[in-house]
Amino acid sequence: MDRLHVTYHLNVEPDDAEALARSILLEQTVETPREVAERYPFVRSAMLGERLELAPHADGGTRLRLALPVSTASVDPLQFLNVLFGNVSLHGLATLEDFELPAALAPTFHGPRFGLRGLRDRFERPEGPLTASALKPVGIPLDELERLCRDFAEGGIDLVKDDHYLADHAFCPFDARVRACQAVMDDVAAATGHRTIYAPNLSGTPDQVRRQLDVAQEAGVQAVMVAPMALGLPVLYELTQRGDVPVLAHPSFAGAGRITPLALLGKLFRLFGADAVIFPNYGGRFSYAAETCRALAEQLRAPWPPFRTVLPVPAGGMDVDRAPELVRFFGPDVMLLVGGSLLRAEDDLRDRTAAFVAAAREA
Amino acid sequence: MDRLHVTYHLNVEPDDAEALARSILLEQTVETPREVAERYPFVRSAMLGERLELAPHADGGTRLRLALPVSTASVDPLQFLNVLFGNVSLHGLATLEDFELPAALAPTFHGPRFGLRGLRDRFERPEGPLTASALKPVGIPLDELERLCRDFAEGGIDLVKDDHYLADHAFCPFDARVRACQAVMDDVAAATGHRTIYAPNLSGTPDQVRRQLDVAQEAGVQAVMVAPMALGLPVLYELTQRGDVPVLAHPSFAGAGRITPLALLGKLFRLFGADAVIFPNYGGRFSYAAETCRALAEQLRAPWPPFRTVLPVPAGGMDVDRAPELVRFFGPDVMLLVGGSLLRAEDDLRDRTAAFVAAAREA
Repeated sequence: MDRLHVTYHLNVEPDDAEALARSILLEQTVETPREVAERYPFVRSAMLGERLELAPHADGGTRLRLALPVSTASVDPLQFLNVLFGNVSLHGLATLEDFELPAALAPTFHGPRFGLRGLRDRFERPEGPLTASALKPVGIPLDELERLCRDFAEGGIDLVKDDHYLADHAFCPFDARVRACQAVMDDVAAATGHRTIYAPNLSGTPDQVRRQLDVAQEAGVQAVMVAPMALGLPVLYELTQRGDVPVLAHPSFAGAGRITPLALLGKLFRLFGADAVIFPNYGGRFSYAAETCRALAEQLRAPWPPFRTVLPVPAGGMDVDRAPELVRFFGPDVMLLVGGSLLRAEDDLRDRTAAFVAAAREA
Repeated sequence: MDRLHVTYHLNVEPDDAEALARSILLEQTVETPREVAERYPFVRSAMLGERLELAPHADGGTRLRLALPVSTASVDPLQFLNVLFGNVSLHGLATLEDFELPAALAPTFHGPRFGLRGLRDRFERPEGPLTASALKPVGIPLDELERLCRDFAEGGIDLVKDDHYLADHAFCPFDARVRACQAVMDDVAAATGHRTIYAPNLSGTPDQVRRQLDVAQEAGVQAVMVAPMALGLPVLYELTQRGDVPVLAHPSFAGAGRITPLALLGKLFRLFGADAVIFPNYGGRFSYAAETCRALAEQLRAPWPPFRTVLPVPAGGMDVDRAPELVRFFGPDVMLLVGGSLLRAEDDLRDRTAAFVAAAREA
């Protein structure tokens, strides 16, 4: 396969899909009438795609599979998005469902630099489920953030990430926060031997995010978090080439309606370099079905040479008590991210964290 | 109003919307249980939002209006997106419909640097409809692109933009293309007195796009194009602060399902700095309704102090013959962007362009 195979779900019956399928094929390749494209020998031979399938979809509507040329999709990561789901995203009836990357496109992407295994190395935890929580709510003072870090770390958790609303606020500046939180982790590691990784949230324009990455790396931070759809997938791409720390992808602004979670969180985030992908878990605050979550976790961990496998991070309103159930559901190659259910604790956060960690490990 | 007012459409009946509305309010502010947030005086006073309305929506479902604090939304442009439609975008039932920017948030955004008036100044066309076309299909050789530029310019068109698939291809490198196309425009301007503006497509990672912007400005280019949703809205924001040329926003990868066109193309693109916004016109290749297109154009041109007004650019499979109809429909503050219908011409592109220009101006 030397072309990009893309699957769209069209919300029309197959009998009515013929004209739409024809127009999408042109839209995603030459974006001109076919007669104009065919005037030019190079365009005719290298730029036109092909329809592979137009058939009833198992879930209703129509399944359209196209083979698209790589000449444009390979030229830069943004062009890949244009070819994959650029103009077709404006067709109200089309959803991007899946894609298969041909060998010719692999050199365009580096994918995760650390991935699941690299993260496990950093956590010094070669197997078993991993545990995580978040610093929140935004607005609490720095000494309270330090207190949370200490309790989480002494409780034995693997990762503490910033809430995605934590940014370079005047009442809690990025540089001071990152240095202080990392210092707590260093302290606890020296005292107990257990190192919790602190992942600050990088937020702002590309310049701001780049500066924050430098500050974080200088502070000894072992991972960072970004929201690729809010920041821009090409920024994730560049950041994961520039930095030397694993990157967690947060799903903020990712929507769910027009790119399926499997295609967006399961594939695009990985392709652009995320080492761990946070997604809304079933039975929490969001509406993802259990089967969607399981398929997403499996997709992130499935081999996709040459890209590293990715750490799935279910999150979003999970109760601590569900840890054993979730480890059984997802398997041990998972990081459970629990926020509010831990933070409900007041003076017993450390003990509650330790109970969460134990519940996850003993599942 | 010192808070950000946001309107969501919830795809549930009002009787069932109460719990969802409560959860969205927390999601878009503190992302913790309310009891945790209320422990902290500063969080309680500065970080919690308020529900303004939960009522039947005119189009069915439920209308939810929230007043959200600006403390986080103002800290950087990405945080604005997080607060506006970050996690809530993952709720399958919620669509962002509109927002109103309070004065407290205006300093976060510069909006368009040139806008509709600045573009008219560059075109030296203080009134009347503007005309545009595109260089395509991707894959045609440079001398053919130069031929197209010359015919378009001699035909009297105002703008020629790159197809969004034109990038830094080996068979058509960015630097050579931009210099050659701009040179044609300079030539025609010297010979005829009519200057057509050439807008190259910037594509790639932020570093690549930044370099391309520099190359384009050095070549004397008078406008550029980017696809903000593929590139990342924060990159648009930074680019429009860095550069000194008007920026056209292309809707590629913008989807249409979960943020309404009015909120996304009509407001967010403007807020982040686009001077002209390309959108899929009614009756063309896409599925936008005529009323959506009219409302979008009106919104882009409506006063929204302190941000400049924006040039609406309907596009996407319009026939040249529709120029008079479209000018009557949108009014004269519009740029008609016609590609395929002009490019169907072979040896008579210049005449066809001239006829298009005349039809638009005489409407």
